Amino acid sequence: MTDVQDVLGVALVGCGTVGGAVAEILTRDRSILEERIARHIELRHIVDVDFTNAKKIGLDEKLFRSDLQEALDDEGVSVVLELIGGTTIAKDLSERALRAGKHVVTANKALLAHYGIELYALARDNGVCITFEASCAGGVPIIRALTGGLIANRIDALYGIVNGTCNYILTAMTRRGQTYAEALAQAQRDGLAEADPTLDVSGADSAHKLAILASLAFGQRIDLEAIHVSGIDSLDPRDVACGQELGYVAKLLAIAQRRDDGLSLRVRTVFISKEHPLAWVSGPFNAVSVYGHATGHTMYYGRGAGGMPTASAVVADIAAVATGAAQRTFDGLPLWPDLREPAEQLPIDAVNSRYYLRMTCHDRPRVIAAIADILGRRDISISSVLQHEPDENEERFGVPIIITTHKANEGNVRKALLEVDDLDVVKSGSVCIGIVDEHEEQL
Amino acid sequence: MTDVQDVLGVALVGCGTVGGAVAEILTRDRSILEERIARHIELRHIVDVDFTNAKKIGLDEKLFRSDLQEALDDEGVSVVLELIGGTTIAKDLSERALRAGKHVVTANKALLAHYGIELYALARDNGVCITFEASCAGGVPIIRALTGGLIANRIDALYGIVNGTCNYILTAMTRRGQTYAEALAQAQRDGLAEADPTLDVSGADSAHKLAILASLAFGQRIDLEAIHVSGIDSLDPRDVACGQELGYVAKLLAIAQRRDDGLSLRVRTVFISKEHPLAWVSGPFNAVSVYGHATGHTMYYGRGAGGMPTASAVVADIAAVATGAAQRTFDGLPLWPDLREPAEQLPIDAVNSRYYLRMTCHDRPRVIAAIADILGRRDISISSVLQHEPDENEERFGVPIIITTHKANEGNVRKALLEVDDLDVVKSGSVCIGIVDEHEEQL
Repeated sequence: MTDVQDVLGVALVGCGTVGGAVAEILTRDRSILEERIARHIELRHIVDVDFTNAKKIGLDEKLFRSDLQEALDDEGVSVVLELIGGTTIAKDLSERALRAGKHVVTANKALLAHYGIELYALARDNGVCITFEASCAGGVPIIRALTGGLIANRIDALYGIVNGTCNYILTAMTRRGQTYAEALAQAQRDGLAEADPTLDVSGADSAHKLAILASLAFGQRIDLEAIHVSGIDSLDPRDVACGQELGYVAKLLAIAQRRDDGLSLRVRTVFISKEHPLAWVSGPFNAVSVYGHATGHTMYYGRGAGGMPTASAVVADIAAVATGAAQRTFDGLPLWPDLREPAEQLPIDAVNSRYYLRMTCHDRPRVIAAIADILGRRDISISSVLQHEPDENEERFGVPIIITTHKANEGNVRKALLEVDDLDVVKSGSVCIGIVDEHEEQL
Repeated sequence: MTDVQDVLGVALVGCGTVGGAVAEILTRDRSILEERIARHIELRHIVDVDFTNAKKIGLDEKLFRSDLQEALDDEGVSVVLELIGGTTIAKDLSERALRAGKHVVTANKALLAHYGIELYALARDNGVCITFEASCAGGVPIIRALTGGLIANRIDALYGIVNGTCNYILTAMTRRGQTYAEALAQAQRDGLAEADPTLDVSGADSAHKLAILASLAFGQRIDLEAIHVSGIDSLDPRDVACGQELGYVAKLLAIAQRRDDGLSLRVRTVFISKEHPLAWVSGPFNAVSVYGHATGHTMYYGRGAGGMPTASAVVADIAAVATGAAQRTFDGLPLWPDLREPAEQLPIDAVNSRYYLRMTCHDRPRVIAAIADILGRRDISISSVLQHEPDENEERFGVPIIITTHKANEGNVRKALLEVDDLDVVKSGSVCIGIVDEHEEQL
């Protein structure tokens, strides 16, 4: 029964961690795959500038090419796997593949966040499709959820932990009380952070994924530049500890919320209630919570990076092209942003949220009254106040006063904090961290 | 752009909670759906014997039919939605629909667990497909994960919380310390348990879902009758409390594990470590953890029952039929059990697991030594022992001794417990609960 009925030829472009793992699934694990899909996926070309990894895996050197052209000229190739990353050479090669009538499977979030619209349109013009399950949350089939399982829903919100490096660092800060610098150094030693971790810790990588996920969830064009992005590098372990005391866990979240007046999209470190499933997602794992008008809350969890998990998603896309399901979905549903209008993206000051505020004050009478007065005039209502007996250091460096607010407008909060920081009794700049409560479902 | 390009006619059979919600998505929420799928799903017939709910929703009475035949004779109908449940009339109607060349979309786990193989084959014979995303875990797209996103994986294990009624009752027992009877009564008052809850609390409903999920995960025919099933109704709140003290949460799990010698399939109340994501799944929510050789652990979470969440899955299947992706997947992949061989299903005594044992003993010397001797002779190694100072009641009724074991063979544990219960120092029958640790991933 599971005789191989068909052959699909692929060209692998980029044989690094992910590309190498894809090659391993297609060769070493060939019997597993063929039993599952009743087809042979034939690896016909491996294109790269450096074959160190390809040789280490033991791939057939006869397949090594320094240029894509031979693969594009090969009629036996139906699919090009773009696994080199970046937005320059990857864009050029993807365009050449699409123009040559090859389907493109990619794991490249930066490419799609910047140039997705034109690449989707180019694929359509050439009668092929571009699939990218591996671009967001690695081995977790979140793209399929948005374009398949949740299709009957108006998506109202999406909250994602989509960067494993950041989540690993934040988990270490939460569980071991490490500083950001200590946790980053540990992540680098464990191979979970790059030598230059900027793309991850700045939130930029999460913003790329948010742009892709939000475009499909809401069926709108997303302007990457208009996503408000901040990272994890300024998080103070004192706030991590205070948040825990209040029942919150610090997470870098990619947030997308539909409002009557537009979409609010942002990447930032927030406090999330320990009761929310996303708070449980620890170490390098990823998870995306999606709120649909029919399903309510669903969540998708798994490894967001690494060779084999990401390769799992790449090969799933190849299989979907092999059956024709991928083309039917890409051609048959109007979700991709080349077919849609630009979103109304709301400025960060339009956010309505609860907030955690930490002010560092002199230990004098009427400090809280002065702060509360400023907040009240900006329509910011206080939910809780936390001030411990000062210890020795704090008498010298200032006493922390923690305030959590009810829902308030972020613009008002910013303005209020500028005024608070101007008070004589306040010693240094206040800290403001958004609080994400369970999304209000409309079932 | 999102102009409606196409019309797909459907007949709804069974207009209860789920059927009614499907009708609402197709009518009240029509504009949401058409914007997402660029097609009109036309509800052409509503077949039922009782239209109370259909009238309450305000559905068009001109569509009401007492028999399916008119829908089968209607060439404008491509899809029949089987939402009546049960295995008698539902089977007859599904067969008639398939023979008439209509695709069937169903939420009926009992039907597929008992008769899936013949229904899949009948669909194939008639050139149509049968889809059933709604049959397992309601609004959670777990069928798509197994037949799509995870297709590149050899699935090694699957652990599911797939019955919301049981999970709600167990959550109440865990968090509020209620007895089973108290928690069941509360669930019935809250509309989360049937007046006759047998199908849910016995584990039978979970076994239906396990049969479906395991058949797709492993690509094998599953014999429902050979799944070992026990429920939640004998769970003692004292064990729930002791388990918590040891770091475990009681969950009814549907378990499927691949071993070299076959598949181990069982439904039972187990203790799961508080560190495992499934332990966090509370109230009526469902979740399924799947372990693939490439992805490692992925988990899918959401509402497993209720009208709108289940309808979300039904309508997702209709949309997949509309694009043709469903047919491509059903025809193009060899996962469905009509195409596969029967699984080697292992007997329950072959399970290897850790166990929680509670013996009720007289407070006399050498009790633990006697028990440990019996366990040791059966190759059962002790991991921890918990015995509190006895209180007044326990001096009368017996002292509980809690033992957790290292991995042991279940057959040996059963035999050992029979011997333990025969000891003079043991007052009443011992309790044995399996412990599920994090699955050992092979990445």
